Amino acid sequence: MTRRTKSHTLNQLVVERLMHYYHLVAEQIETQTSGYVSSAQIAELLDMDDTLVRKDLAAIGVRGRPRVGFSTQVLMNSIRETLGFNERYRSVIVGAGRLGGAIASYGGFGKYGLDIVALFDADPLRVGTDLGGASVLPIDSLESTVREHGVHLAVLTVPAEAAQPLADRLVEAGIRAIWNFAPTSLVLPSNIFVRHEHISVGLAELAYYLKRNDLSNDRS
Amino acid sequence: MTRRTKSHTLNQLVVERLMHYYHLVAEQIETQTSGYVSSAQIAELLDMDDTLVRKDLAAIGVRGRPRVGFSTQVLMNSIRETLGFNERYRSVIVGAGRLGGAIASYGGFGKYGLDIVALFDADPLRVGTDLGGASVLPIDSLESTVREHGVHLAVLTVPAEAAQPLADRLVEAGIRAIWNFAPTSLVLPSNIFVRHEHISVGLAELAYYLKRNDLSNDRS
Repeated sequence: MTRRTKSHTLNQLVVERLMHYYHLVAEQIETQTSGYVSSAQIAELLDMDDTLVRKDLAAIGVRGRPRVGFSTQVLMNSIRETLGFNERYRSVIVGAGRLGGAIASYGGFGKYGLDIVALFDADPLRVGTDLGGASVLPIDSLESTVREHGVHLAVLTVPAEAAQPLADRLVEAGIRAIWNFAPTSLVLPSNIFVRHEHISVGLAELAYYLKRNDLSNDRS
Repeated sequence: MTRRTKSHTLNQLVVERLMHYYHLVAEQIETQTSGYVSSAQIAELLDMDDTLVRKDLAAIGVRGRPRVGFSTQVLMNSIRETLGFNERYRSVIVGAGRLGGAIASYGGFGKYGLDIVALFDADPLRVGTDLGGASVLPIDSLESTVREHGVHLAVLTVPAEAAQPLADRLVEAGIRAIWNFAPTSLVLPSNIFVRHEHISVGLAELAYYLKRNDLSNDRS
């Protein structure tokens, strides 16, 4: 009931932080504790302010017990429910190259609701192969597959120059959200949700650490 | 001079936001404007508070001009310099599977300072091949290559169960920072910097959007 009343939209940064809490608790905390975690513990491990942790969790209706903390089970279930991991999302992967293949084969995304219906590629040599249990289909059948399976989500793993025309085709076919791994921005109607995955954000943090600690190999 | 006096450490969230500003300005703003951008523009496009944008930029010594905003050139150069993109970081990729191959072949990481010296794989069929201009070497030569080239950064793209023993070997060989794409946490000495890349954080945002808009394919 509490969560139902919280129908306002969480912004991107809150969603991302919730996901970090989820990973942290699932991977590092849940196995080591008595089933409770404090906002201070989460805050310390993620190097952030514990007030923000409490605020984020309160926003999804998760309240701690004084001196005990948050139930890890309640916390994880609430995040799963809020973020939609208990639903299923049929998706297609466009681009069956190394990255598309890595995503299809990873297998770990299923627990967040991702169902991969098929991959698509323009290269006839890739068509007909199987990646992570899904078939690589010819790019011509993109629209018919999306419509037939009621697919709303597309993962775009094509080179930069191919991204925009394919995104346009996906939108035309009825796609509502694109997970864009192509290293380029997409211009799309405002009702289409695009998440541009900048893997280089991670690299920035590493570069910053290495620089600060004089661990570069400067050859200039 | 201004930036030199700012020697305190930026935390992870600040570094990540700086990288998002950098991408935003590089990809969407720089080409469309007169060379200036306001904190309000950045804040709106990233769906965040403009006070935070100004605070982050002030932390790296970037100050705007009243009614004009921030010079995009100064902003980008300051971020590049602060985050260390103007230095070079020799790195190795451990795991020459699909994801390792995708990272080696991407080519876009060089502009952030990443130099890939070599890849390593335990599979003899992969050894001797070339990915993105770097050779795949046998895993036995990991330690000698790391030492010989003064490599401080390793990109770990191996299955979860192989990650910890390989991370231990990397640390023993002198690696100081690990970019971990393996879907598991690593237990390492506290002086080793680990960035765990949770690609599923992006998926969380998409799942949340799809759920909110009733775009799931629920079969329960």
